[in-house]
Amino acid sequence: MNWTNNITRILNIEYPIIQAPMFGVTTPEMVAATSNINCLGSLALADLSAEKCVEAIRLTKQLTKNPFAVNIFVHDIPEITDKLRADYANAKTFIEHLAEQNNLHIHIPTIDQLKINSYHEQVDVIISENCKILSFTFGNLEKHSIDKLKSNGTILIGTCTSVSEAIVLEKSGIDIICVQGLEAGGHRGSFTSEVIPKIGGLSLLAQVSETVNVPIIYAGGIYNSKTLLASKALGAGGFQIGSLLLGSAESALKDFEKERLRKVNEADIVLTKSFSGRLARGIRNAFISDMEETEFILPYPYQNKLTGELRKVAKINKNVDFVNIWVGQSINDYSGQSITEIISKLIKQTETNNR
Amino acid sequence: MNWTNNITRILNIEYPIIQAPMFGVTTPEMVAATSNINCLGSLALADLSAEKCVEAIRLTKQLTKNPFAVNIFVHDIPEITDKLRADYANAKTFIEHLAEQNNLHIHIPTIDQLKINSYHEQVDVIISENCKILSFTFGNLEKHSIDKLKSNGTILIGTCTSVSEAIVLEKSGIDIICVQGLEAGGHRGSFTSEVIPKIGGLSLLAQVSETVNVPIIYAGGIYNSKTLLASKALGAGGFQIGSLLLGSAESALKDFEKERLRKVNEADIVLTKSFSGRLARGIRNAFISDMEETEFILPYPYQNKLTGELRKVAKINKNVDFVNIWVGQSINDYSGQSITEIISKLIKQTETNNR
Repeated sequence: MNWTNNITRILNIEYPIIQAPMFGVTTPEMVAATSNINCLGSLALADLSAEKCVEAIRLTKQLTKNPFAVNIFVHDIPEITDKLRADYANAKTFIEHLAEQNNLHIHIPTIDQLKINSYHEQVDVIISENCKILSFTFGNLEKHSIDKLKSNGTILIGTCTSVSEAIVLEKSGIDIICVQGLEAGGHRGSFTSEVIPKIGGLSLLAQVSETVNVPIIYAGGIYNSKTLLASKALGAGGFQIGSLLLGSAESALKDFEKERLRKVNEADIVLTKSFSGRLARGIRNAFISDMEETEFILPYPYQNKLTGELRKVAKINKNVDFVNIWVGQSINDYSGQSITEIISKLIKQTETNNR
Repeated sequence: MNWTNNITRILNIEYPIIQAPMFGVTTPEMVAATSNINCLGSLALADLSAEKCVEAIRLTKQLTKNPFAVNIFVHDIPEITDKLRADYANAKTFIEHLAEQNNLHIHIPTIDQLKINSYHEQVDVIISENCKILSFTFGNLEKHSIDKLKSNGTILIGTCTSVSEAIVLEKSGIDIICVQGLEAGGHRGSFTSEVIPKIGGLSLLAQVSETVNVPIIYAGGIYNSKTLLASKALGAGGFQIGSLLLGSAESALKDFEKERLRKVNEADIVLTKSFSGRLARGIRNAFISDMEETEFILPYPYQNKLTGELRKVAKINKNVDFVNIWVGQSINDYSGQSITEIISKLIKQTETNNR
């Protein structure tokens, strides 16, 4: 098996295996462990403030000298209308009441107390910290940012969930496209249409690879050599793994969350907007069911802000019914091996299988 | 490329390529054309009466001496409760009114006028007509039918949409499992749970092939050599194609339907219960939108019966807004080539690609 290709050359890595950026799960240790075995770690910065971004980037740099990606959320921020204000207040009351009933003591900020960060500050940090690989999701960077980042020599990786999104990314000069199949855990990266595309990886990847000319990373369902080689056959040059690493020693998930994962059944895994206002795949629990029955799931980032405190307190209380455990459709053992062990095994298995 | 495997041996065919049974699209000519080039045609019998089944089987036998499968719907028939009776009446009024507004003149039978066939009669026909391959969907055959069919030497192919369904089929002695990825057009074959599984083919096929020991056919998104070889890498020995044949010369679709297919966009393709009461993938149109806004989509087969007349009259009137055009997530050209041309091209492309 020859691993060298466009992706390894552009990203300056040996194996085109990418650790998925999983905000809340990814740690600097996870990123560094991946990059230190010559794959690509991805530091999940989500919509963190500039200061927090600097901190996380510097921490990671202390742990690896190898290339790693930083990942940010590139999304529109819906204007606060009267309706949104009213829905927010209703949802706040609902969630506070629900928490109270379940002995979780929380206080959700009002809509006017929210601090919502724009990704533009993050772009400045990425340049000043001299990060050389930026992946992003939930949208496309606007031209000014693309130009600034390219002048800095930063390689850009955009996320698509449809052929039309892939075309948008290619046209704006993004270097590498990450195709996210429906199988993927966590948030859908969708951004072009009202109706969120739900295209299975087999169809989506084949069609994107026949449509665009930029190198492609595939994300969604890769958990062993068969799934890796299938995505290779479909046109991917890079292979992104997320759920496979959820149970790892370097994962930020708590023991009670890893335990829940080890008992997961295929029927438990759902797509929901309950936690953040954007569709994400994870384990159904009481919060998802309760929230979906209401009429006020707000758009991202407002829903995400609304549930932040609840998730934090539930995590401290080891309450599996009110935390978000994202996971994809390929169930694996989630045992506590190290990142190095998990990825090395995947590489070895693939090399054996592809002889 | 060596095509010979368990599937070709069991089914006595040369290439493990299976033409998907597509009720309303498949013709005896399509089935025979597929079988005549040593692949496996599948005659879609759905829930036809015993007499209609005999007719279709005999017609097909006149066109080919090679093996072909017959495919039936194996589903529970919900009891007629007061609620179902009321919902049926409401839906009948709604659909008749909708049709009237759109100049489609229909008369829907009342619930008591319906003739609903059970698959047990079909099983008797399949044995008396000496059909040697039976594929089925929407459920599992009960033990008595399995025993009868096996005594007759009939090979059984069951459809699954989850790992747990695959296990059910294997345990009851089904010979071959057809794994239906979420990408597939037409009806989901789901049968074990209230919540319909929506698992992408890449995840589903890999997991089923690691779980069961019977040979596997994959259906859902195969439209070229890349998708075929990917499903091979994931563990399939048989490759089922459906949407790829929709535009063929042998397809029963009308010209106006093929024309609509040629203009289809990825965002038009949805899963809906509107037409039949079971989830199926096809092109969104006015009927789907209107029906989904109501609160009375009935369970299969009642919803299917309710919309039957509408679909028939809309087809005669070339009204694209009220017919069901099923299609999967891999968009292709739907040009009017023959079955022989389409399948031969796929075989040749795969052989070239797999050298």
